[in-house]
Amino acid sequence: MSLTESLKKITDDIPDALGIALVGTDGIVVEEVKRGDSLDFQSLGAEYCIIFKEVERASSSCALGTPLEVSIVSNETTVVMKRVNKEYFVILVLGSEGNFGKGRFLLRKEIVNLQKEL
Amino acid sequence: MSLTESLKKITDDIPDALGIALVGTDGIVVEEVKRGDSLDFQSLGAEYCIIFKEVERASSSCALGTPLEVSIVSNETTVVMKRVNKEYFVILVLGSEGNFGKGRFLLRKEIVNLQKEL
Repeated sequence: MSLTESLKKITDDIPDALGIALVGTDGIVVEEVKRGDSLDFQSLGAEYCIIFKEVERASSSCALGTPLEVSIVSNETTVVMKRVNKEYFVILVLGSEGNFGKGRFLLRKEIVNLQKEL
Repeated sequence: MSLTESLKKITDDIPDALGIALVGTDGIVVEEVKRGDSLDFQSLGAEYCIIFKEVERASSSCALGTPLEVSIVSNETTVVMKRVNKEYFVILVLGSEGNFGKGRFLLRKEIVNLQKEL
């Protein structure tokens, strides 16, 4: 299965998914799947990569372990970032909080395929 | 109900909760409830306050809405930060991912009481 197919498998199963992207830890987007044009994954990847690194720093400094997943629920969207391996993570953007659990479940399921492909 | 009682109500209901704190947006801890001495909420409050602000900045820059909740699942702990109002947020630290859903549910339920008390 291609990277795009693996990513599409996640968004296809979530009615309000706005998009998903595979991003390097340098913030550069490797692959993306979007519904509509509302998401700019180039900016999003760069911005949320900084956040993930900030979270890693804080987590290490407070002895809270190695972060695997960061979720942000806002009044308009829900963003789930999940580590694929040392070099990549996935950013899933949902249009509401309603499918937060389903999004996490599908990410967890599909991450194994992504790991194989990378 | 006092602030401490409201916070304790959440940790009492979660077997693996390590602690909870009410923190100002300046990173200063107002009230905290801990199990054991493993958590240093003074550092944690300061560190995670920076993260919340970074998330707000990124979310605004990517037009993803106003962040209400940030969760970090790591290999050792799960941290849930939730906005109480413009000036305060709550940081809940769990010993595993097992009670992530319950933690979010109890936070949501108790946040109304915290809002009344502040």
